[in-house]
Amino acid sequence: MNEAHKEKLNELRSYIKELEYLNQAMGLIFWDMRVGIPKKAIEPRSEVIGYLSSESYKLETSDKVKEFIDYFEGVEGLDDVSKSMVENMKKNYEKTKKIPADRHREYTILASKSEVAWEDAKDKSDFEMFKPYLEKVVDFKEEFINYWGYEKNKYDTLLDFYEPSITVEKLDNIFGELRDAIVELLGKIKESKIKPRDDFFKKDFSKESQEEFGKFVVEKLGYDFDAGRIDESVHPFTINFGNKDVRITTKYLTNEFRSALFSTIHEGGHAIYEQDIPDELEGTGLGNGVSMGIHESQSRFYENIIGRSKEFWRYFYPEAQRRFPQFEGVSFEDFYRGINTVEPSLIRTEADELTYSLHVIIRYEIEKALINGKIQVGDLPGVWNEKYKEYLGVEPSSDAEGVLQDMHWSDGSFGYFPSYALGNIYGAQFLNKMKNDMPNMYEEIEKGNFKEIHNWLKENIHKHGAVYKPAELIKMVTGEELTAKYFIEYLNKKYTEIYEL
Amino acid sequence: MNEAHKEKLNELRSYIKELEYLNQAMGLIFWDMRVGIPKKAIEPRSEVIGYLSSESYKLETSDKVKEFIDYFEGVEGLDDVSKSMVENMKKNYEKTKKIPADRHREYTILASKSEVAWEDAKDKSDFEMFKPYLEKVVDFKEEFINYWGYEKNKYDTLLDFYEPSITVEKLDNIFGELRDAIVELLGKIKESKIKPRDDFFKKDFSKESQEEFGKFVVEKLGYDFDAGRIDESVHPFTINFGNKDVRITTKYLTNEFRSALFSTIHEGGHAIYEQDIPDELEGTGLGNGVSMGIHESQSRFYENIIGRSKEFWRYFYPEAQRRFPQFEGVSFEDFYRGINTVEPSLIRTEADELTYSLHVIIRYEIEKALINGKIQVGDLPGVWNEKYKEYLGVEPSSDAEGVLQDMHWSDGSFGYFPSYALGNIYGAQFLNKMKNDMPNMYEEIEKGNFKEIHNWLKENIHKHGAVYKPAELIKMVTGEELTAKYFIEYLNKKYTEIYEL
Repeated sequence: MNEAHKEKLNELRSYIKELEYLNQAMGLIFWDMRVGIPKKAIEPRSEVIGYLSSESYKLETSDKVKEFIDYFEGVEGLDDVSKSMVENMKKNYEKTKKIPADRHREYTILASKSEVAWEDAKDKSDFEMFKPYLEKVVDFKEEFINYWGYEKNKYDTLLDFYEPSITVEKLDNIFGELRDAIVELLGKIKESKIKPRDDFFKKDFSKESQEEFGKFVVEKLGYDFDAGRIDESVHPFTINFGNKDVRITTKYLTNEFRSALFSTIHEGGHAIYEQDIPDELEGTGLGNGVSMGIHESQSRFYENIIGRSKEFWRYFYPEAQRRFPQFEGVSFEDFYRGINTVEPSLIRTEADELTYSLHVIIRYEIEKALINGKIQVGDLPGVWNEKYKEYLGVEPSSDAEGVLQDMHWSDGSFGYFPSYALGNIYGAQFLNKMKNDMPNMYEEIEKGNFKEIHNWLKENIHKHGAVYKPAELIKMVTGEELTAKYFIEYLNKKYTEIYEL
Repeated sequence: MNEAHKEKLNELRSYIKELEYLNQAMGLIFWDMRVGIPKKAIEPRSEVIGYLSSESYKLETSDKVKEFIDYFEGVEGLDDVSKSMVENMKKNYEKTKKIPADRHREYTILASKSEVAWEDAKDKSDFEMFKPYLEKVVDFKEEFINYWGYEKNKYDTLLDFYEPSITVEKLDNIFGELRDAIVELLGKIKESKIKPRDDFFKKDFSKESQEEFGKFVVEKLGYDFDAGRIDESVHPFTINFGNKDVRITTKYLTNEFRSALFSTIHEGGHAIYEQDIPDELEGTGLGNGVSMGIHESQSRFYENIIGRSKEFWRYFYPEAQRRFPQFEGVSFEDFYRGINTVEPSLIRTEADELTYSLHVIIRYEIEKALINGKIQVGDLPGVWNEKYKEYLGVEPSSDAEGVLQDMHWSDGSFGYFPSYALGNIYGAQFLNKMKNDMPNMYEEIEKGNFKEIHNWLKENIHKHGAVYKPAELIKMVTGEELTAKYFIEYLNKKYTEIYEL
């Protein structure tokens, strides 16, 4: 590559850096709005966000960007990072530019109204209140898909926002196989004589003691408090402003031990990913987790595969017993079963490790049908309830605990849900490779040594940031295409043992 | 005023609003850097600040601003707010534009190095380490004063940044009179037989109990927690992002009751000022306190005039005794004297109400001489120590507790110090008028009713934001030019009684 190209690459990185600065400022405002902002400032602060995001939009869609794209169109011999950086910029530019500005503006206004309508409708458990908004949102999405274009399936275009390289064709296979396997396993569990206890989790646990224990655990796992902090918020989340400031939030329930702890470990998994992003990716637009699905694979890996494993608690349970007299007299076996209780339920965010993916697959099937015109918005409550009955054997008694439970559709985030189940699938496939590379990994967990696991994830996944597409990454790391096989094996093995099937 | 003018005014306000948005984003980052940022993020976050402030600089100095200035040059009949808005924009534009960009850049770099050098020098208590930096800073200031121009005194140009309309001529009179009066009063106090106790303030006070009491007090005074919050930081400060989010910080000492409490009340005074700024001033650049001096008048009014008054503690002392068993058996008289102890000392930030102004006047006299070439940087430690001996009767045993104690000179903030003493003078002049308007004000304080006082400050001072210059404001409110008379009267009366002179 010649000097002129190198210089242009540096120029591009400086340009992208400005975008990153704006995003970091917006990120901090966003965090503050959820963690500490005084009530009266919420509305005026939204204006600041509005201003900064319009500045960011200008940078992303400027003629300067077009010039960069044109310049690099014919340039050969770029390294992986530079190639991906240029591609990523081009993709964002085109996705944005293809939507007429006035339609984008109208959609933004609609989306914020629709969110409010969803909240109201959920409060009153009345889907009809939300329906007219959701219909408009879906119409917009269809219009946008036409601008963006699609190859085999309209829904692919939406999936691409959250999980580049994933398609309906792939998901139908993978999710179909997983759904059938879980439904079958669930059937057996329902027949099992084992009924795990969980009364001891529902005693009184002070917020402070939970907070301390949560911090103790995630620090052990590798979360760096010099590059992050934990606060409280209504909904737990992870947010980062660069790789040196990755913040977690948790919500504490004083009458339920598991909630905050596993949510802290989950967010900790997201956060460790972002903390591990190398400095060299600054100013490339690739200095973050590559996709929602890979991100969820990291959070769920720490939360479930590690955090709900027997070996993990062999190490942590004595410490938990020392800190929490509530566990006095509770056997290790009872504790372990208690954190792995399977119980088909109505609410996705409260689901256990096994049934969780079914909640997601239901949403996937519905979204795909909706976007392809196979069902209409008016059909949603009915279809929803049928699928819950069929796959999980439960039926919502109201829209609030059914079709209205998640906010994702209200602002048009169709295509997002699959990431949650993809995370499980990626995670188990990584686990399989990890076990091959480190046959003693569970022994290390039992000793409280999480360094090698962390290092494996860092070297194989985290350090690449968003340089490789998820499909490339899983192939690079495991040598195989994405498959549900390992997750199914993992579930069968784990729950067969727990429920003595 | 015709329609075209009105439209242009609206256009200008939208333009200024963008600047305000940027400033609010920077403000939040600044707050976070002092309150919660993880260690490793400090350096990268400075880059975000750097980016945003260069964007803000561009907006302030753009050709667009020049156009606005030219447009309004000949326009008659503007209301007070619009007139002041245009003037303020013009002033900022010219102040910035008159400095060549490369000299400004070099100065910024020097200032940040000089700050570091000051910190080192202070740690090692060695003025010689700091001297070469300070010499360069002073050279720059002299060069800049030449760009900006001056009329009677070079130092006036610097004063104007912090206290528009204040001059050396005025300060020499006012500060001279005040200095002599305090020195005289202090002499008498030194001879007094009254030696207030303060041992009961130095017991163990938990951070939590101090925090709760501080919140209780400032809320009573009128601080609105729906438009603000209190956190902890190394140095207490108040910062606002608009009038709906005005945050305070405090530092808690567990072995000193007075420190956090009075600093919370002090910051509360600043904060109430900013919370009272009317919404209508949004987008004018005038939606904030008018000057450092007027700001200090509000904080010191609440901290000292109200917060260290007998009547205030008639109301709050029973509550303090209820909360703090440490005050068991401490008489009201002892408590009241204890919070008003006079003790000449070396460190400005720890000085009592009476001697505080002397610390400031010493700095004023030194800065004035330095900027006008009457003394050189090398003379500073000597001149400093002489003046401390002369006015306060104490002598620093090291540079750290003498000339190196404050950071203000390291980044060239000459002209800032006088505001601290001006605050006391403005405050007492306001008090005099307030007592005329509300003869029963102290009775109301004793009843715990602070609403009318707050309302008086709001109506007379706060609601004007930065529309009127300090000299205009004091005249408008009190009918008189600024005078030290009322502050001297106030001090004499209060301390004559306390020390039975």
